[in-house]
Amino acid sequence: MNAPATTSVWCELALIDDRVQPGVTLGIDHGRIGSIDVATEPDDSPTDTVRLAGLTVPGLANAHSHAFHRALRSRTQAERGTFWTWRDLMYRAADRLEPDTYRRLARAVYAEMAMAGVTCVGEFHYLHHRPDGTPYDDPNAMGRALLDAAADAGIRITLLDTAYLHGGLDADGHRPAAGVQRRFDDGDVDAWRRRVDRLADELTADEPSGGDSRRIGAAVHSVRAVDPDAMRQIGEWAAARSAPLHAHVSEQVAENEACRARHGRTPMAVLADAGLLSERFAAVHATHLTDDDVALLASSGSSVVMCPTTERDLGDGIGPTREFADAGVAMAVGSDSHAVIDLFEEARALELDERLRSRERGIHAAPDLLVMATAEGHRTLGWSDAGSIAVGRRADLVTVRLDSVRTAGVTADAAVEAVVFAASAVDVTDVFVDGRHVVAGARHATIDVETELAATIEELMSDG
Amino acid sequence: MNAPATTSVWCELALIDDRVQPGVTLGIDHGRIGSIDVATEPDDSPTDTVRLAGLTVPGLANAHSHAFHRALRSRTQAERGTFWTWRDLMYRAADRLEPDTYRRLARAVYAEMAMAGVTCVGEFHYLHHRPDGTPYDDPNAMGRALLDAAADAGIRITLLDTAYLHGGLDADGHRPAAGVQRRFDDGDVDAWRRRVDRLADELTADEPSGGDSRRIGAAVHSVRAVDPDAMRQIGEWAAARSAPLHAHVSEQVAENEACRARHGRTPMAVLADAGLLSERFAAVHATHLTDDDVALLASSGSSVVMCPTTERDLGDGIGPTREFADAGVAMAVGSDSHAVIDLFEEARALELDERLRSRERGIHAAPDLLVMATAEGHRTLGWSDAGSIAVGRRADLVTVRLDSVRTAGVTADAAVEAVVFAASAVDVTDVFVDGRHVVAGARHATIDVETELAATIEELMSDG
Repeated sequence: MNAPATTSVWCELALIDDRVQPGVTLGIDHGRIGSIDVATEPDDSPTDTVRLAGLTVPGLANAHSHAFHRALRSRTQAERGTFWTWRDLMYRAADRLEPDTYRRLARAVYAEMAMAGVTCVGEFHYLHHRPDGTPYDDPNAMGRALLDAAADAGIRITLLDTAYLHGGLDADGHRPAAGVQRRFDDGDVDAWRRRVDRLADELTADEPSGGDSRRIGAAVHSVRAVDPDAMRQIGEWAAARSAPLHAHVSEQVAENEACRARHGRTPMAVLADAGLLSERFAAVHATHLTDDDVALLASSGSSVVMCPTTERDLGDGIGPTREFADAGVAMAVGSDSHAVIDLFEEARALELDERLRSRERGIHAAPDLLVMATAEGHRTLGWSDAGSIAVGRRADLVTVRLDSVRTAGVTADAAVEAVVFAASAVDVTDVFVDGRHVVAGARHATIDVETELAATIEELMSDG
Repeated sequence: MNAPATTSVWCELALIDDRVQPGVTLGIDHGRIGSIDVATEPDDSPTDTVRLAGLTVPGLANAHSHAFHRALRSRTQAERGTFWTWRDLMYRAADRLEPDTYRRLARAVYAEMAMAGVTCVGEFHYLHHRPDGTPYDDPNAMGRALLDAAADAGIRITLLDTAYLHGGLDADGHRPAAGVQRRFDDGDVDAWRRRVDRLADELTADEPSGGDSRRIGAAVHSVRAVDPDAMRQIGEWAAARSAPLHAHVSEQVAENEACRARHGRTPMAVLADAGLLSERFAAVHATHLTDDDVALLASSGSSVVMCPTTERDLGDGIGPTREFADAGVAMAVGSDSHAVIDLFEEARALELDERLRSRERGIHAAPDLLVMATAEGHRTLGWSDAGSIAVGRRADLVTVRLDSVRTAGVTADAAVEAVVFAASAVDVTDVFVDGRHVVAGARHATIDVETELAATIEELMSDG
């Protein structure tokens, strides 16, 4: 899937500068948008131009992923309980992964994402070590598996290498990691830093051009798993590297309660006091926040990554997206646990769940929701040159059919509304990533996604 | 699409008596299930047996539909406001329909439903008269359009002929119907009864065998549009005909407030006092209820029809489905405004939105949600012989792929969970209605659904 040096595509409709334009011819030059001409006819184009019917939008960014959770889809729906009982099931799957199975599973999952229009994934990665907690011969073997999987699937990745140094938090302090959590635990923040430095330096050596399809960011798993002193050092690492920094924040009320009992403050206040908030920081979930928490995010230029289909699945609650919009906090979206992989569903869920909460319509307009799923997502992952169709930007394109049973009947003036509120991932016909035609005719160019998903999940989850 | 007298189908997996069984051979005899054999091999079957890969479940019932709302999909998403501003847009579409356009639009919409696995629709029909409020030459021309549309699409229909006699309710009483509402208004309940009797009698004459694919039920639009005396007479009509009786109940807080101001009681209490509640009654929406309202439903054996994707779209709120389950109130589902047509999405939304409300998982199990979308839906529409795969029942079958990117990786023991929580309407490959193979290979047997949707919606909604 190397990109040709130059090519051109003709779009029936394309979203350019927040406007739906007809007959758009895009010149692609070494993976970037080289030229944009609107109101062109397809017959005027060179015969080798790719023709894209429907609406072409910028590439989608899946800003929060735990790839291996895909293996749990449907299987956890028979269970009663809460987030915490669900977590037990998730840990069981985590216990079985090895670098080889992880790569094969993630390759299929990332290819499923590509079919859904995802051009870049943010993988929140904390499954670092062997089941007994000792490092692999390459201490980044598991992270490498994810980087290679994204390359296989033809999408970019920001590996958010996650510090997970404690097993939990209560009023007396942090508990040690236990059971499968030993796979997550680097022991201390110095060991985390040495491991991540090694990976980041290797990547730079791998790709002396600067690395055009994968980046290393940092993550603090949560206030449960990282103490404030370690947080501060992780924040300093990310600042020195100008790297994205993410953290799970206030997904659960119980986390807030434990944090208040120990620290006398909200998780967001703990993170802020540790110096983590900045324009490179994103709070993931951000479901149960105080007004002060929202103000901390806004004043620091931090973002949030909302995962509404996962919040529905895990019964987390509805995050305060109206308050984020009012305060000017940028939002991105992620499919997180991959109960579904459909960023249109994530985007519309922000608005639909806000409607349920506030009993008003039109809090977040469709174009704004699409920006969250494209430009804002890419920005939170460190790719500020992606997520819009503009000259000089990365040639990430996602074409959505407007002639399926879901979208039929729409006109150009409501095409963005149709994509965000009526389309499904299945309506994505074509995806370009950095100019490479990764999905064509709703099929992945190189991977038999369904077959690989079935085979790897069966291998991982079978009781035999 | 006449059904052959006898045929047989072989299902890789089928849901029989609440169990997923492998290798099921179903004999179909004059539109009914004649025989069921499990653990059979496809090679043992006659060569003309249809082979269905994936999980075959009973036919889905869409228990609440306003077919013409499909024309509003996506177009209303640019609007801010509330349910009431949305209603203004909906009225604009209603103003333009004539029997011919109504039939062509509904035919395409019902065919979209068939592709989604719907074998029976409950159409809550109140668009009775000419734009100036006078009757058509056939006073049931609009209802006839819907009956014919369902026949075209190959699905069964219960036409819930709806009384809409007033334009609204406030503390002083009911306001007269105005504007497009004149199309809904029969003038008085006697006129409603004469018109509906005429249609019901004509149908009996049309189909002396008893009418096997269409039925007439009654509906009270709401406490806003029907006064208690008229309600009582409508209830008596339905009782005399043993017909289903539906009503919009407490979709909006404002409706509850107006009802209390006028009647000093909740809408449900007003309906109960008018004698409407019984095992043939279904309260549609049922979003904002008191504990006493739930008890009234339970003690009378009434049902509810939940429309969660519409409640999300219109910002109605989350109905008390946990309380319904605890009280033993049967639930069905409907796609109502057709912002999406996907009964799996409706079914899982009941559970997912309840999880958001209660912050617990597993309130409604997947098999229970599927019963709501199948047997309970059919029962609320007056078809107690449909909605399960059992000898003697109607041969309604819906086959769902388990090898799509959404469902890949599932095993038989989680197949129902996969269908309810991970599949989409697009995963429906085959649909049989009363033994007729209406959808095969994910295509409608006789209707080019996408083309007809686009053409009829453009015709209806264009400004020209």
